[in-house]
Amino acid sequence: MAHAFKNCPNVMVTGASRGLGLQIVKSLATGGFSPGKIIATAQNPEGAKELQKLAAEHQIIHIVKLDVISQASIDRAASEVEQLVQEEGLNCLINNAGINIIADFETVTAEKMLENFHTNSVAPLMITKAMFPLLKRAATKGTGMGIHRAAVINMSSLLGSVELYWGDRANTFKWYPYRTSKSALNMVTRCLAVDLKADGILCMALHPGWVRTDMGGPEAPLSTEESISSVLSVIGGLTETDHGSFLHYTGEQLPW
Amino acid sequence: MAHAFKNCPNVMVTGASRGLGLQIVKSLATGGFSPGKIIATAQNPEGAKELQKLAAEHQIIHIVKLDVISQASIDRAASEVEQLVQEEGLNCLINNAGINIIADFETVTAEKMLENFHTNSVAPLMITKAMFPLLKRAATKGTGMGIHRAAVINMSSLLGSVELYWGDRANTFKWYPYRTSKSALNMVTRCLAVDLKADGILCMALHPGWVRTDMGGPEAPLSTEESISSVLSVIGGLTETDHGSFLHYTGEQLPW
Repeated sequence: MAHAFKNCPNVMVTGASRGLGLQIVKSLATGGFSPGKIIATAQNPEGAKELQKLAAEHQIIHIVKLDVISQASIDRAASEVEQLVQEEGLNCLINNAGINIIADFETVTAEKMLENFHTNSVAPLMITKAMFPLLKRAATKGTGMGIHRAAVINMSSLLGSVELYWGDRANTFKWYPYRTSKSALNMVTRCLAVDLKADGILCMALHPGWVRTDMGGPEAPLSTEESISSVLSVIGGLTETDHGSFLHYTGEQLPW
Repeated sequence: MAHAFKNCPNVMVTGASRGLGLQIVKSLATGGFSPGKIIATAQNPEGAKELQKLAAEHQIIHIVKLDVISQASIDRAASEVEQLVQEEGLNCLINNAGINIIADFETVTAEKMLENFHTNSVAPLMITKAMFPLLKRAATKGTGMGIHRAAVINMSSLLGSVELYWGDRANTFKWYPYRTSKSALNMVTRCLAVDLKADGILCMALHPGWVRTDMGGPEAPLSTEESISSVLSVIGGLTETDHGSFLHYTGEQLPW
Protein backbone atom coordinates (compact mmCIF):
# COMPACT_ATOMS: atom_id res chain seq x y z
CA MET A 1 0.00 0.00 0.00
CA ALA A 2 2.77 2.44 0.81
CA HIS A 3 5.14 1.23 -1.87
CA ALA A 4 5.20 4.67 -3.45
CA PHE A 5 7.32 5.73 -0.49
CA LYS A 6 10.12 3.66 -2.02
CA ASN A 7 10.61 6.64 -4.28
CA CYS A 8 10.45 9.14 -1.41
CA PRO A 9 13.88 9.24 0.23
CA ASN A 10 13.31 11.53 3.20
CA VAL A 11 10.09 11.92 5.18
CA MET A 12 9.45 14.11 8.22
CA VAL A 13 6.48 13.55 10.56
CA THR A 14 5.59 15.96 13.38
CA GLY A 15 3.82 14.83 16.54
CA ALA A 16 5.30 11.34 16.22
CA SER A 17 5.36 10.36 19.90
CA ARG A 18 1.87 8.85 19.82
CA GLY A 19 -1.39 8.45 17.93
CA LEU A 20 -1.38 8.87 14.17
CA GLY A 21 2.12 10.32 14.03
CA LEU A 22 3.62 7.30 15.77
CA GLN A 23 1.64 4.98 13.50
CA ILE A 24 2.92 6.76 10.38
CA VAL A 25 6.50 6.22 11.54
CA LYS A 26 5.77 2.61 12.46
CA SER A 27 4.04 1.82 9.16
CA LEU A 28 6.78 3.49 7.11
CA ALA A 29 9.59 1.73 8.99
CA THR A 30 8.04 -1.73 9.02
CA GLY A 31 6.15 -1.67 5.74
CA GLY A 32 8.58 -3.72 3.72
CA PHE A 33 10.25 -0.80 2.00
CA SER A 34 12.72 1.74 3.20
CA PRO A 35 12.84 5.39 2.44
CA GLY A 36 16.15 7.11 3.11
CA LYS A 37 15.33 8.66 6.46
CA ILE A 38 12.25 8.99 8.61
CA ILE A 39 12.53 12.10 10.74
CA ALA A 40 10.13 11.78 13.65
CA THR A 41 9.62 14.86 15.78
CA ALA A 42 8.37 14.95 19.35
CA GLN A 43 7.90 17.77 21.82
CA ASN A 44 9.48 15.64 24.50
CA PRO A 45 11.64 12.88 22.98
CA GLU A 46 12.71 11.62 26.45
CA GLY A 47 9.10 10.76 27.28
CA ALA A 48 8.34 9.18 23.90
CA LYS A 49 9.16 5.62 24.94
CA GLU A 50 7.38 3.82 22.10
CA LEU A 51 9.00 6.02 19.49
CA GLN A 52 12.41 5.49 21.09
CA LYS A 53 11.93 1.72 21.03
CA LEU A 54 10.93 1.87 17.38
CA ALA A 55 13.96 4.03 16.54
CA ALA A 56 16.26 1.57 18.30
CA GLU A 57 14.90 -1.20 16.06
CA HIS A 58 15.00 0.78 12.82
CA GLN A 59 18.12 2.77 12.02
CA ILE A 60 16.29 4.86 9.44
CA ILE A 61 14.25 6.58 12.15
CA HIS A 62 15.77 9.80 13.48
CA ILE A 63 14.10 11.51 16.42
CA VAL A 64 14.25 15.30 16.45
CA LYS A 65 12.99 17.46 19.31
CA LEU A 66 10.38 19.97 18.16
CA ASP A 67 7.99 22.17 20.11
CA VAL A 68 5.78 23.28 17.22
CA ILE A 69 4.70 26.56 18.80
CA SER A 70 8.26 27.76 19.50
CA GLN A 71 10.03 29.50 16.62
CA ALA A 72 13.39 28.89 18.29
CA SER A 73 12.59 25.17 18.47
CA ILE A 74 11.45 25.15 14.82
CA ASP A 75 14.69 26.84 13.76
CA ARG A 76 16.80 24.37 15.74
CA ALA A 77 14.87 21.43 14.27
CA ALA A 78 15.38 22.80 10.74
CA SER A 79 19.16 22.83 11.31
CA GLU A 80 19.07 19.25 12.57
CA VAL A 81 16.96 18.12 9.65
CA GLU A 82 19.35 19.78 7.23
CA GLN A 83 22.24 17.84 8.78
CA LEU A 84 20.25 14.64 8.29
CA VAL A 85 19.06 15.09 4.74
CA GLN A 86 21.93 17.21 3.40
CA GLU A 87 21.99 17.56 -0.39
CA GLU A 88 19.05 15.20 -0.90
CA GLY A 89 16.66 17.61 0.75
CA LEU A 90 13.29 16.74 2.30
CA ASN A 91 10.78 14.95 0.10
CA CYS A 92 7.73 14.77 2.32
CA LEU A 93 6.75 16.91 5.30
CA ILE A 94 3.72 15.56 7.17
CA ASN A 95 2.40 18.25 9.52
CA ASN A 96 0.61 15.86 11.84
CA ALA A 97 1.03 17.43 15.30
CA GLY A 98 -2.25 18.78 16.58
CA ILE A 99 -4.35 19.31 19.66
CA ASN A 100 -8.06 19.48 20.46
CA ILE A 101 -9.00 22.08 23.05
CA ILE A 102 -12.60 21.00 23.51
CA ALA A 103 -14.95 23.94 24.06
CA ASP A 104 -18.53 24.65 23.02
CA PHE A 105 -20.45 27.95 22.83
CA GLU A 106 -20.77 28.05 26.62
CA THR A 107 -17.17 27.26 27.50
CA VAL A 108 -15.15 28.74 24.64
CA THR A 109 -12.72 31.55 25.50
CA ALA A 110 -10.34 33.67 23.44
CA GLU A 111 -7.40 31.85 25.02
CA LYS A 112 -8.72 28.43 23.98
CA MET A 113 -9.31 29.65 20.42
CA LEU A 114 -5.81 31.14 20.18
CA GLU A 115 -4.08 28.11 21.67
CA ASN A 116 -5.72 25.64 19.30
CA PHE A 117 -5.14 27.95 16.32
CA HIS A 118 -1.46 28.34 17.17
CA THR A 119 -0.73 24.60 17.28
CA ASN A 120 -3.08 23.40 14.52
CA SER A 121 -2.95 26.23 11.96
CA VAL A 122 0.05 28.48 12.55
CA ALA A 123 2.63 25.83 13.46
CA PRO A 124 2.24 23.88 10.17
CA LEU A 125 2.83 27.15 8.31
CA MET A 126 5.91 28.12 10.29
CA ILE A 127 7.34 24.59 10.06
CA THR A 128 6.77 24.55 6.30
CA LYS A 129 8.52 27.93 6.02
CA ALA A 130 11.50 26.59 7.97
CA MET A 131 11.69 23.41 5.86
CA PHE A 132 11.09 25.24 2.58
CA PRO A 133 14.78 25.35 1.53
CA LEU A 134 15.03 21.59 2.10
CA LEU A 135 11.77 20.87 0.25
CA LYS A 136 12.93 23.07 -2.61
CA ARG A 137 16.24 21.24 -2.71
CA ALA A 138 14.45 17.89 -3.04
CA ALA A 139 12.06 19.31 -5.65
CA THR A 140 14.88 20.30 -8.00
CA LYS A 141 15.59 16.60 -8.57
CA GLY A 142 12.39 15.49 -10.23
CA THR A 143 9.53 16.35 -12.55
CA GLY A 144 5.77 16.30 -12.04
CA MET A 145 4.41 16.54 -8.51
CA GLY A 146 4.29 14.02 -5.70
CA ILE A 147 6.34 12.55 -2.87
CA HIS A 148 9.00 11.36 -5.31
CA ARG A 149 9.83 15.05 -5.55
CA ALA A 150 8.50 17.17 -2.64
CA ALA A 151 5.20 17.43 -0.80
CA VAL A 152 3.66 19.09 2.24
CA ILE A 153 0.80 17.11 3.80
CA ASN A 154 -1.28 18.93 6.40
CA MET A 155 -3.32 16.66 8.64
CA SER A 156 -6.65 18.43 8.65
CA SER A 157 -10.09 17.16 9.57
CA LEU A 158 -13.53 16.75 8.11
CA LEU A 159 -14.59 18.78 11.17
CA GLY A 160 -12.85 21.73 9.51
CA SER A 161 -15.22 21.63 6.55
CA VAL A 162 -17.60 24.58 6.88
CA GLU A 163 -19.80 23.13 4.15
CA LEU A 164 -20.28 19.78 5.92
CA TYR A 165 -21.07 21.31 9.33
CA TRP A 166 -24.79 21.54 8.72
CA GLY A 167 -27.98 19.51 8.92
CA ASP A 168 -27.52 16.00 10.26
CA ARG A 169 -23.80 16.54 10.80
CA ALA A 170 -24.42 19.51 13.09
CA ASN A 171 -25.53 17.58 16.13
CA THR A 172 -22.14 16.53 17.45
CA PHE A 173 -18.61 17.78 18.02
CA LYS A 174 -19.61 21.38 18.69
CA TRP A 175 -15.98 22.29 19.17
CA TYR A 176 -15.26 25.93 18.31
CA PRO A 177 -11.48 25.94 18.79
CA TYR A 178 -10.82 22.67 16.95
CA ARG A 179 -13.19 23.22 14.03
CA THR A 180 -11.99 26.77 13.52
CA SER A 181 -8.32 25.75 13.65
CA LYS A 182 -8.86 23.10 10.97
CA SER A 183 -10.76 25.51 8.68
CA ALA A 184 -7.87 27.90 9.12
CA LEU A 185 -5.40 25.11 8.35
CA ASN A 186 -7.26 24.42 5.13
CA MET A 187 -6.76 28.06 4.07
CA VAL A 188 -3.09 27.90 5.11
CA THR A 189 -2.77 24.78 2.92
CA ARG A 190 -4.34 26.56 -0.03
CA CYS A 191 -2.09 29.60 0.43
CA LEU A 192 0.96 27.31 0.52
CA ALA A 193 -0.27 25.49 -2.59
CA VAL A 194 -0.52 28.79 -4.45
CA ASP A 195 2.94 29.93 -3.37
CA LEU A 196 4.96 26.70 -3.59
CA LYS A 197 3.58 25.54 -6.93
CA ALA A 198 6.33 27.29 -8.90
CA ASP A 199 8.92 25.25 -7.01
CA GLY A 200 7.12 21.99 -7.78
CA ILE A 201 6.21 21.34 -4.14
CA LEU A 202 2.83 19.63 -3.80
CA CYS A 203 0.68 20.91 -0.89
CA MET A 204 -2.60 19.39 0.27
CA ALA A 205 -4.82 18.79 3.32
CA LEU A 206 -5.85 15.31 4.40
CA HIS A 207 -8.57 14.00 6.75
CA PRO A 208 -7.23 10.84 8.41
CA GLY A 209 -10.65 9.61 9.55
CA TRP A 210 -12.02 9.28 13.06
CA VAL A 211 -9.44 7.13 14.78
CA ARG A 212 -9.08 5.42 18.15
CA THR A 213 -6.26 7.62 19.50
CA ASP A 214 -6.01 9.68 22.70
CA MET A 215 -7.68 12.46 20.69
CA GLY A 216 -10.27 10.38 18.86
CA GLY A 217 -11.34 8.40 21.91
CA PRO A 218 -12.30 4.72 22.26
CA GLU A 219 -15.56 4.97 20.28
CA ALA A 220 -13.91 5.93 17.00
CA PRO A 221 -14.50 3.38 14.21
CA LEU A 222 -10.92 3.18 12.88
CA SER A 223 -7.75 1.71 14.35
CA THR A 224 -4.56 3.72 13.78
CA GLU A 225 -3.34 0.94 11.47
CA GLU A 226 -6.48 1.12 9.32
CA SER A 227 -6.33 4.91 9.10
CA ILE A 228 -2.63 5.15 8.32
CA SER A 229 -2.71 2.29 5.83
CA SER A 230 -5.21 4.33 3.85
CA VAL A 231 -3.51 7.68 4.54
CA LEU A 232 -0.13 6.47 3.26
CA SER A 233 -1.75 4.98 0.20
CA VAL A 234 -3.38 8.35 -0.59
CA ILE A 235 -0.15 10.28 0.07
CA GLY A 236 1.83 7.83 -2.06
CA GLY A 237 -0.51 8.31 -5.00
CA LEU A 238 -0.65 12.11 -5.01
CA THR A 239 -0.04 13.83 -8.35
CA GLU A 240 -0.42 17.33 -9.87
CA THR A 241 -4.19 17.01 -9.85
CA ASP A 242 -4.20 16.74 -6.06
CA HIS A 243 -2.20 19.95 -5.55
CA GLY A 244 -4.18 22.34 -3.33
CA SER A 245 -6.82 19.72 -2.50
CA PHE A 246 -8.60 18.54 0.65
CA LEU A 247 -8.95 14.76 0.60
CA HIS A 248 -10.68 12.13 2.73
CA TYR A 249 -8.45 9.22 3.82
CA THR A 250 -10.29 7.14 1.27
CA GLY A 251 -9.06 9.50 -1.43
CA GLU A 252 -12.33 11.33 -2.11
CA GLN A 253 -12.40 15.09 -2.35
CA LEU A 254 -13.93 16.99 0.57
CA PRO A 255 -15.71 20.34 0.37
CA TRP A 256 -14.05 23.25 2.17
CA MET B 1 -33.10 50.15 0.23
CA ALA B 2 -32.69 49.75 3.94
CA HIS B 3 -36.37 50.09 4.77
CA ALA B 4 -36.41 46.67 6.36
CA PHE B 5 -34.46 48.27 9.22
CA LYS B 6 -37.71 50.05 10.14
CA ASN B 7 -38.65 46.75 11.73
CA CYS B 8 -35.31 46.36 13.46
CA PRO B 9 -35.37 48.44 16.63
CA ASN B 10 -31.83 48.08 17.95
CA VAL B 11 -28.67 47.66 15.89
CA MET B 12 -25.08 47.38 17.08
CA VAL B 13 -22.09 47.94 14.79
CA THR B 14 -18.49 47.31 15.87
CA GLY B 15 -15.55 49.22 14.40
CA ALA B 16 -17.74 52.25 13.67
CA SER B 17 -15.10 54.97 13.87
CA ARG B 18 -14.23 54.78 10.16
CA GLY B 19 -14.56 52.86 6.91
CA LEU B 20 -17.48 50.51 6.45
CA GLY B 21 -18.57 50.64 10.10
CA LEU B 22 -18.90 54.42 10.03
CA GLN B 23 -20.80 54.21 6.73
CA ILE B 24 -23.24 51.67 8.15
CA VAL B 25 -24.03 54.02 11.04
CA LYS B 26 -24.31 56.99 8.66
CA SER B 27 -26.57 55.17 6.21
CA LEU B 28 -28.80 53.82 8.98
CA ALA B 29 -29.12 57.22 10.71
CA THR B 30 -29.71 59.28 7.58
CA GLY B 31 -31.60 56.77 5.45
CA GLY B 32 -35.06 58.19 5.99
CA PHE B 33 -36.12 55.67 8.61
CA SER B 34 -35.21 55.31 12.21
CA PRO B 35 -34.57 52.17 14.14
CA GLY B 36 -34.76 52.47 17.89
CA LYS B 37 -31.09 52.77 18.68
CA ILE B 38 -27.88 52.52 16.72
CA ILE B 39 -25.07 51.40 19.00
CA ALA B 40 -21.77 52.32 17.39
CA THR B 41 -18.64 50.94 19.03
CA ALA B 42 -15.14 52.33 18.71
CA GLN B 43 -11.86 51.33 20.30
CA ASN B 44 -11.10 54.99 20.97
CA PRO B 45 -14.32 57.08 20.97
CA GLU B 46 -12.40 60.27 21.81
CA GLY B 47 -10.48 60.05 18.55
CA ALA B 48 -13.55 59.14 16.45
CA LYS B 49 -14.36 62.70 15.39
CA GLU B 50 -16.59 61.87 12.44
CA LEU B 51 -18.62 59.40 14.46
CA GLN B 52 -18.94 61.94 17.28
CA LYS B 53 -20.21 64.59 14.84
CA LEU B 54 -22.73 62.12 13.43
CA ALA B 55 -23.91 61.17 16.93
CA ALA B 56 -24.36 64.84 17.82
CA GLU B 57 -26.67 65.23 14.81
CA HIS B 58 -28.63 62.02 15.36
CA GLN B 59 -29.88 61.24 18.85
CA ILE B 60 -30.46 57.59 17.98
CA ILE B 61 -26.71 56.98 17.72
CA HIS B 62 -25.06 55.84 20.95
CA ILE B 63 -21.30 55.49 21.03
CA VAL B 64 -19.91 52.69 23.20
CA LYS B 65 -16.22 52.12 23.86
CA LEU B 66 -15.10 48.64 22.84
CA ASP B 67 -11.66 47.13 22.40
CA VAL B 68 -12.68 43.92 20.66
CA ILE B 69 -9.69 41.87 21.83
CA SER B 70 -10.19 42.67 25.52
CA GLN B 71 -12.67 40.47 27.40
CA ALA B 72 -12.98 43.10 30.14
CA SER B 73 -13.87 45.70 27.52
CA ILE B 74 -16.39 43.33 25.89
CA ASP B 75 -18.02 42.70 29.28
CA ARG B 76 -18.23 46.44 30.05
CA ALA B 77 -19.70 47.13 26.60
CA ALA B 78 -22.29 44.39 27.11
CA SER B 79 -23.45 46.08 30.34
CA GLU B 80 -23.71 49.44 28.58
CA VAL B 81 -25.63 47.93 25.69
CA GLU B 82 -28.03 46.27 28.11
CA GLN B 83 -28.71 49.66 29.72
CA LEU B 84 -29.45 51.07 26.27
CA VAL B 85 -31.72 48.35 24.87
CA GLN B 86 -33.24 47.12 28.13
CA GLU B 87 -36.26 44.83 27.68
CA GLU B 88 -36.30 45.24 23.90
CA GLY B 89 -33.01 43.42 23.52
CA LEU B 90 -30.62 43.64 20.58
CA ASN B 91 -32.03 42.87 17.12
CA CYS B 92 -28.96 43.08 14.94
CA LEU B 93 -25.28 42.70 15.83
CA ILE B 94 -22.94 43.59 12.97
CA ASN B 95 -19.43 42.31 13.75
CA ASN B 96 -17.65 44.69 11.42
CA ALA B 97 -14.41 45.54 13.26
CA GLY B 98 -11.44 43.98 11.52
CA ILE B 99 -7.80 44.45 10.65
CA ASN B 100 -5.50 43.36 7.85
CA ILE B 101 -1.99 42.44 8.94
CA ILE B 102 -0.48 42.16 5.50
CA ALA B 103 2.09 39.36 5.24
CA ASP B 104 3.03 36.92 2.49
CA PHE B 105 4.94 33.62 2.65
CA GLU B 106 8.24 35.47 3.15
CA THR B 107 7.10 37.87 5.83
CA VAL B 108 4.45 35.96 7.77
CA THR B 109 5.17 35.20 11.44
CA ALA B 110 3.24 33.39 14.15
CA GLU B 111 2.61 36.72 15.89
CA LYS B 112 1.03 38.25 12.76
CA MET B 113 -1.19 35.19 12.28
CA LEU B 114 -2.33 35.24 15.91
CA GLU B 115 -2.99 38.99 15.98
CA ASN B 116 -5.16 38.96 12.87
CA PHE B 117 -6.99 35.83 14.04
CA HIS B 118 -7.73 37.36 17.42
CA THR B 119 -9.35 40.52 16.03
CA ASN B 120 -11.05 39.06 12.95
CA SER B 121 -12.16 35.59 14.09
CA VAL B 122 -12.12 35.33 17.88
CA ALA B 123 -13.47 38.79 18.75
CA PRO B 124 -16.74 38.36 16.77
CA LEU B 125 -17.30 35.10 18.67
CA MET B 126 -16.62 36.58 22.09
CA ILE B 127 -18.76 39.67 21.33
CA THR B 128 -21.61 37.45 20.14
CA LYS B 129 -21.34 35.41 23.35
CA ALA B 130 -21.51 38.57 25.44
CA MET B 131 -24.51 39.92 23.50
CA PHE B 132 -26.26 36.54 23.38
CA PRO B 133 -28.67 37.27 26.28
CA LEU B 134 -29.73 40.53 24.57
CA LEU B 135 -30.11 38.86 21.16
CA LYS B 136 -32.14 36.09 22.77
CA ARG B 137 -34.33 38.66 24.48
CA ALA B 138 -35.08 40.34 21.15
CA ALA B 139 -35.68 36.98 19.48
CA THR B 140 -38.46 36.02 21.91
CA LYS B 141 -40.60 38.80 20.38
CA GLY B 142 -41.02 37.52 16.82
CA THR B 143 -41.37 34.56 14.51
CA GLY B 144 -39.36 33.47 11.49
CA MET B 145 -35.79 34.68 11.15
CA GLY B 146 -34.37 38.05 10.22
CA ILE B 147 -33.45 41.45 11.64
CA HIS B 148 -37.06 42.05 12.75
CA ARG B 149 -36.21 39.42 15.34
CA ALA B 150 -32.47 38.89 15.95
CA ALA B 151 -29.45 38.44 13.72
CA VAL B 152 -25.66 38.24 13.89
CA ILE B 153 -23.90 39.49 10.76
CA ASN B 154 -20.18 38.74 10.51
CA MET B 155 -18.32 40.91 8.03
CA SER B 156 -16.23 38.33 6.25
CA SER B 157 -14.45 38.50 2.90
CA LEU B 158 -14.32 36.74 -0.42
CA LEU B 159 -10.60 36.47 0.37
CA GLY B 160 -11.62 34.00 3.09
CA SER B 161 -13.07 31.59 0.53
CA VAL B 162 -10.67 28.64 0.22
CA GLU B 163 -12.52 27.46 -2.88
CA LEU B 164 -12.10 30.76 -4.73
CA TYR B 165 -8.39 31.15 -3.93
CA TRP B 166 -7.20 29.25 -6.98
CA GLY B 167 -6.43 29.70 -10.65
CA ASP B 168 -6.82 33.25 -11.91
CA ARG B 169 -7.76 34.53 -8.47
CA ALA B 170 -4.53 33.27 -6.95
CA ASN B 171 -2.26 35.96 -8.36
CA THR B 172 -3.03 38.73 -5.89
CA PHE B 173 -3.62 39.40 -2.20
CA LYS B 174 -1.29 36.68 -0.97
CA TRP B 175 -2.11 37.61 2.60
CA TYR B 176 -1.76 34.65 5.00
CA PRO B 177 -3.00 36.31 8.21
CA TYR B 178 -6.02 38.04 6.65
CA ARG B 179 -7.20 35.17 4.44
CA THR B 180 -6.79 32.65 7.25
CA SER B 181 -8.65 34.87 9.73
CA LYS B 182 -11.62 35.22 7.38
CA SER B 183 -11.79 31.47 6.68
CA ALA B 184 -11.76 30.97 10.42
CA LEU B 185 -14.50 33.59 10.82
CA ASN B 186 -16.60 31.68 8.32
CA MET B 187 -16.34 28.57 10.49
CA VAL B 188 -17.11 30.61 13.61
CA THR B 189 -20.22 31.89 11.79
CA ARG B 190 -21.30 28.39 10.90
CA CYS B 191 -20.75 27.17 14.48
CA LEU B 192 -22.85 30.09 15.77
CA ALA B 193 -25.56 29.34 13.21
CA VAL B 194 -25.75 25.75 14.43
CA ASP B 195 -25.91 26.76 18.09
CA LEU B 196 -28.18 29.84 17.96
CA LYS B 197 -30.77 28.40 15.60
CA ALA B 198 -32.92 27.05 18.42
CA ASP B 199 -33.24 30.59 19.81
CA GLY B 200 -34.31 31.97 16.44
CA ILE B 201 -31.16 34.07 16.01
CA LEU B 202 -30.07 34.28 12.38
CA CYS B 203 -26.29 34.07 11.84
CA MET B 204 -24.48 34.61 8.54
CA ALA B 205 -21.26 35.89 6.96
CA LEU B 206 -21.22 38.70 4.42
CA HIS B 207 -18.60 39.93 1.92
CA PRO B 208 -18.99 43.72 1.63
CA GLY B 209 -17.05 44.02 -1.62
CA TRP B 210 -13.69 45.62 -2.28
CA VAL B 211 -14.18 49.13 -1.01
CA ARG B 212 -12.19 52.38 -0.99
CA THR B 213 -11.45 52.48 2.75
CA ASP B 214 -8.17 52.72 4.65
CA MET B 215 -8.08 48.94 4.42
CA GLY B 216 -9.26 48.57 0.82
CA GLY B 217 -7.02 51.31 -0.56
CA PRO B 218 -7.69 53.92 -3.28
CA GLU B 219 -7.83 51.44 -6.18
CA ALA B 220 -10.89 49.59 -4.92
CA PRO B 221 -13.88 49.77 -7.28
CA LEU B 222 -16.59 50.55 -4.70
CA SER B 223 -17.27 53.63 -2.60
CA THR B 224 -18.36 53.01 0.99
CA GLU B 225 -21.84 54.33 0.08
CA GLU B 226 -22.19 51.84 -2.80
CA SER B 227 -21.02 48.93 -0.69
CA ILE B 228 -23.16 49.70 2.34
CA SER B 229 -26.26 50.50 0.30
CA SER B 230 -26.05 46.96 -1.03
CA VAL B 231 -24.96 45.43 2.28
CA LEU B 232 -27.91 46.92 4.19
CA SER B 233 -30.28 45.80 1.48
CA VAL B 234 -28.99 42.22 1.81
CA ILE B 235 -29.11 42.31 5.62
CA GLY B 236 -32.61 43.76 5.55
CA GLY B 237 -33.84 40.95 3.33
CA LEU B 238 -32.37 38.02 5.26
CA THR B 239 -34.75 35.15 6.06
CA GLU B 240 -34.54 31.56 7.34
CA THR B 241 -33.02 30.39 4.07
CA ASP B 242 -29.99 32.62 4.63
CA HIS B 243 -29.24 31.22 8.08
CA GLY B 244 -25.67 29.86 8.16
CA SER B 245 -24.84 31.30 4.73
CA PHE B 246 -21.91 33.22 3.21
CA LEU B 247 -23.20 35.92 0.87
CA HIS B 248 -21.69 38.40 -1.55
CA TYR B 249 -22.84 42.03 -1.08
CA THR B 250 -24.94 41.55 -4.19
CA GLY B 251 -26.81 38.78 -2.40
CA GLU B 252 -25.28 35.80 -4.23
CA GLN B 253 -24.06 32.80 -2.32
CA LEU B 254 -20.28 32.37 -2.02
CA PRO B 255 -18.41 29.06 -1.71
CA TRP B 256 -16.57 28.46 1.57
